[in-house]
Amino acid sequence: MPSEAPSGAPDFFGWSCPVPLRDHPRVVMGHGGGGAMSAELVENVFAPAFGGRVLAQLGDSAVLELGGARLAFSTDSYVVRPLFFPGGSIGDLAVNGTVNDLAMSGARAAYLSCGFILEEGVETAVVDRVARALGAAARVAGVEVATGDTKVVEAGHGDGIYLNTAGIGLVPAGVDIRPQRAVPGDVVIVSGEIGLHGVAIMSVREGLEFGVEIQSDCAALGGLVEAMLAVTPDLHVLRDPTRGGLAAALNEIASAAGVGVTVSERAIPVPPQVANACAILGLDPMYVANEGKLVAFVPREHADAVLAAMWAHPLGARAAVIGECVTAHPGMVVARTPFGGTRVVDLPLGEQLPRIC
Amino acid sequence: MPSEAPSGAPDFFGWSCPVPLRDHPRVVMGHGGGGAMSAELVENVFAPAFGGRVLAQLGDSAVLELGGARLAFSTDSYVVRPLFFPGGSIGDLAVNGTVNDLAMSGARAAYLSCGFILEEGVETAVVDRVARALGAAARVAGVEVATGDTKVVEAGHGDGIYLNTAGIGLVPAGVDIRPQRAVPGDVVIVSGEIGLHGVAIMSVREGLEFGVEIQSDCAALGGLVEAMLAVTPDLHVLRDPTRGGLAAALNEIASAAGVGVTVSERAIPVPPQVANACAILGLDPMYVANEGKLVAFVPREHADAVLAAMWAHPLGARAAVIGECVTAHPGMVVARTPFGGTRVVDLPLGEQLPRIC
Repeated sequence: MPSEAPSGAPDFFGWSCPVPLRDHPRVVMGHGGGGAMSAELVENVFAPAFGGRVLAQLGDSAVLELGGARLAFSTDSYVVRPLFFPGGSIGDLAVNGTVNDLAMSGARAAYLSCGFILEEGVETAVVDRVARALGAAARVAGVEVATGDTKVVEAGHGDGIYLNTAGIGLVPAGVDIRPQRAVPGDVVIVSGEIGLHGVAIMSVREGLEFGVEIQSDCAALGGLVEAMLAVTPDLHVLRDPTRGGLAAALNEIASAAGVGVTVSERAIPVPPQVANACAILGLDPMYVANEGKLVAFVPREHADAVLAAMWAHPLGARAAVIGECVTAHPGMVVARTPFGGTRVVDLPLGEQLPRIC
Repeated sequence: MPSEAPSGAPDFFGWSCPVPLRDHPRVVMGHGGGGAMSAELVENVFAPAFGGRVLAQLGDSAVLELGGARLAFSTDSYVVRPLFFPGGSIGDLAVNGTVNDLAMSGARAAYLSCGFILEEGVETAVVDRVARALGAAARVAGVEVATGDTKVVEAGHGDGIYLNTAGIGLVPAGVDIRPQRAVPGDVVIVSGEIGLHGVAIMSVREGLEFGVEIQSDCAALGGLVEAMLAVTPDLHVLRDPTRGGLAAALNEIASAAGVGVTVSERAIPVPPQVANACAILGLDPMYVANEGKLVAFVPREHADAVLAAMWAHPLGARAAVIGECVTAHPGMVVARTPFGGTRVVDLPLGEQLPRIC
């Protein structure tokens, strides 16, 4: 857990979280972890440089008006290592990650851009395999790759393939989904079992064996979100718990809306293989990355119907209510343990496993 | 010139163009050069993987319908070395390059996404300086950075900062600007002096001195294109001659439209410092990259008025008619030399100077 992370050089799982955060003279791996250090880079460097409106949007999808259309617009770069892993590849991630960012605004992705940064010497067969995975994932997600770019850097200045995708999609009328809309009384739902992507990457990268191959949950959530919106357009918040896991997602929402969040550890669906791997590795599944899950804050009166709609969708079959939004402890996430106690679920500082997406 | 490039390892200027092009087992620097090798990667790998519609659009801005709006959408990654150079930085390039791609469809850029891939160990002050340059360039171009992402890779797997931007903008009604629209009789106009960006990068990177500091022409062309469209919405083709220079841009247009292009070498504005540098280095200015110029194919009846509008804009003050579109030699660009001869201007194979943008 982040509060127990060493403060010096990276350890086995890539913790590199010097304290204090301020006054880093150089970028460390933790700045890319999607936790407190990433947020600090955004707040202190990018937001002042780019201007005010972007502040609340950086790292999420932006909702814009253009030519009378209400669009969601989002980007992610992908630097996952290895390029291929059980359940997916960097090409799948590059589609599903950006499609999911758009879906978290309620938008169905329509078009993707795609930028390749190739390292000199990478096999063209590998580039081809990644491109085909990307194309296949785009077809599954119902999104079209509309424009692209290729750059090549010298050997030793890359790692085979880095990818960037940006996506645009239409936000349906009447839909206004953003972290600031969480209100006390909202029911917190997670769409399925957590931790699979992170444990899958970790197992293949570190050569760990957990008895059974653990597959990434990498998937496009546009269809699941459409099914939920068919119940009610009034979903308050959607978030895909990628880097930093469920813990980071819930903390960002609590902080953005100024509300408290309580969850029941017992209610959070953790598959046995993830629980076992995390027990062996000393990790908390709430901090492990997902690539095909969402967390939803839903008005109480719609919660049962939304949950039923999720159960009816293949990607929501294991959806569960895990907690609620409260007036107590604003900005803070509190978990009830199976033994009746409570603990604070912190925003992770850096990253458990660098280059997970 | 590319036809004289050695076929083996990279030479001083980074040529690395093995012949034949087909059956490269590994990516070489020339695949990122924007010439014939880049085109082959697109045709043989990306287009089949991504599907048919993208084929003609990859490497250019795509024009799309979404929610009743007619949008241009484009992306570029930026891997320029060094990060700062006379007349600009990777931050300026990341704005102007993508804004210009949109402008080449007649669109005024409205929103940018921005993805940073940081190398562990890069100074945060450098990241800050790049972000500020990017923000300032966006304000000058009138475009808003709406969404972003940051990833960090280990030291030795990057080169300080790589950037990706994607941009969206509105295409005005009645505007249909694309390479396929070039027709015999069109007048070919270039917006100003060529070769400045490439020579500026080369001089700072290779430590060459040409008596006077040569500044990149890096600039956003949205305003110039608006001024041209105010004369007539019926511009046929616009293209910014970046990687591969004017030679690549004219060849792509000739090939896409199935027309011939003739230019007069004497009419092409080459500033003395670029001419001198190219003479010393044995380069042809027509192959040197630009980052603030455009080439336009304009119906003959509008050419004088468009040229006058360009002269009235600061970024078009040195605009000149350099040639015309012809029925002869379809797909081919032919230059008349100052001595009355003619020569074929080939599509460059790879790249004179890798990582120029």
